[in-house]
Amino acid sequence: MSKKIKVGVVGYGTVGRGTVQTLISNATEIKRKTGLDVVVAGVADLHITDKNDLYLEQVPLRTTCADELIANPDIDIIIELIGGTGAAFDIISKALKNGKHVVTANKALLAMRGTELMALAHSMHFNLMFEASVGGGIPVLSVLQNDLAANHILKIEGIVNGTCNYILTRMEREKLPFETILADAQKLGYAEADPSGDVEGYDSVYKMIILAYLAYGKWVDVKDVERVGITQIGLAQIEAAHVAGQRIKLIGSVEKQGDDIFIAVKPKAVPLESVLADVSGVFNGIEIVGDKVGSLFLQGQGAGSLATASAVCADILKIAGTLK
Amino acid sequence: MSKKIKVGVVGYGTVGRGTVQTLISNATEIKRKTGLDVVVAGVADLHITDKNDLYLEQVPLRTTCADELIANPDIDIIIELIGGTGAAFDIISKALKNGKHVVTANKALLAMRGTELMALAHSMHFNLMFEASVGGGIPVLSVLQNDLAANHILKIEGIVNGTCNYILTRMEREKLPFETILADAQKLGYAEADPSGDVEGYDSVYKMIILAYLAYGKWVDVKDVERVGITQIGLAQIEAAHVAGQRIKLIGSVEKQGDDIFIAVKPKAVPLESVLADVSGVFNGIEIVGDKVGSLFLQGQGAGSLATASAVCADILKIAGTLK
Repeated sequence: MSKKIKVGVVGYGTVGRGTVQTLISNATEIKRKTGLDVVVAGVADLHITDKNDLYLEQVPLRTTCADELIANPDIDIIIELIGGTGAAFDIISKALKNGKHVVTANKALLAMRGTELMALAHSMHFNLMFEASVGGGIPVLSVLQNDLAANHILKIEGIVNGTCNYILTRMEREKLPFETILADAQKLGYAEADPSGDVEGYDSVYKMIILAYLAYGKWVDVKDVERVGITQIGLAQIEAAHVAGQRIKLIGSVEKQGDDIFIAVKPKAVPLESVLADVSGVFNGIEIVGDKVGSLFLQGQGAGSLATASAVCADILKIAGTLK
Repeated sequence: MSKKIKVGVVGYGTVGRGTVQTLISNATEIKRKTGLDVVVAGVADLHITDKNDLYLEQVPLRTTCADELIANPDIDIIIELIGGTGAAFDIISKALKNGKHVVTANKALLAMRGTELMALAHSMHFNLMFEASVGGGIPVLSVLQNDLAANHILKIEGIVNGTCNYILTRMEREKLPFETILADAQKLGYAEADPSGDVEGYDSVYKMIILAYLAYGKWVDVKDVERVGITQIGLAQIEAAHVAGQRIKLIGSVEKQGDDIFIAVKPKAVPLESVLADVSGVFNGIEIVGDKVGSLFLQGQGAGSLATASAVCADILKIAGTLK
């Protein structure tokens, strides 16, 4: 019988719920593929008493206090899914110091304090993994880090924010202005009440910083990234691009020139025949160019409970594979 | 100083040359990313005396005899790149029995004798990896096996033969018949002198069998795969599809119904707005649908010396990472 690997999930929002659901509902398939028994030993959430579902019921330890999971000697891996850059930093660093591996989806925290966190993980000899922080279910970090390890990365270009892409896609198709589509997207849950993190390009900036780190091993400072959001995009611009055989997309790009890494996030008119032009709605798409592999393109769901959970679980299983 | 990992490359054709070139020319980048020193200790090729290049010159042991590498106690990993199902089988099984890990790009051999070879690797506790056997530089096997490990795979659909896709793309664009384009493709090196392995769909069948194995853990027999090549595709059919908003592609598909796995390779008219319709020329594209991740699409160079070498090297580095 293989050893049970125990995980503690901190944050039971959209992704937390998807992760617990995936680990429980697909336990047999996971075991078949990897030989691993991964068990959700506990879930911590400030509002845990308000949460209830079929899967949470099966978790033995439910608590409002993350420390209870971090201090639990039975737990091997802490999954940080509360987001933000305050409490999440403390949870991750405490977990690493307590001898836990950590999986997170927290792009803002990594982009801002990745240097410290990776140094801490390194010094403690524990893993800090974050596949779900970029591109939702698309395994772009693993591809960059492992599958393209023999390549010099020449360029990365991508659509990494589903909210912006959803808005731009609908503006083009329905010929309605930004404000109208944004309001509808908010109503449908595709945009947040305060949409600035998405539509001003911050979210994309964080993600491109993470991609650049995996390609080049350096954390670029947020303030060194050129950033333009989509709030100023008008229908006239979309129409003009269309006439020119192009489509406006919010494009994040990473390029290396000598020892300098340049990251930009801004609206760009891409040719209709390019791979990025066809990434529509909430989908994400990322093109990586390597000196050996050439152009490699990945497209998938950039957000959503289960798609993102797929990436969180991939990290969990990779760590678990080293523990059995 | 980290331990040097030594590889022996058997077969110095297109992919062998690309692999040796990549390991030598990108050694510093590989070391930076992975901390690994991977050294090409030897190359075996029946025509080794006819081969010469900048990279081969730097390999200490050059021989006509694969056994010299397999018997060499310094070599950790054997890279089988001679193709075919005869000598390649002996080389791989001998290497595994001799305590070597093995990397191969040999799709025909895996599709026909994967059961035996994987059982042997398993019983010897050595790795047999084959990322380069499907999709050239596209890391589709690793994505299926590792990144989507928490998913039930619902469907795989792909364009996995660049020669067929190149011919179909040119037939459509230039409105020229199959025979004309095939002859030109042969002249340009995109099709072999005997093109049947590609245009009759056998190559795609082997690749889909490998994908099905990674998704479901079972080797489907070649004769249980429905196979139709592209030799009967006429311009009228391509035009009719076009009028219907579709494009003819040679599509490989894997589906599971209950405990049964169905694999088919046949020309299909796909809607112009589908991801596979836009895979053009020698490119390959594969869509995987998982129960959690949803639809994930990967596109890249399905063949070529360096793109395929990128995948061979990814396998080498993954094995090397467990040895350091």
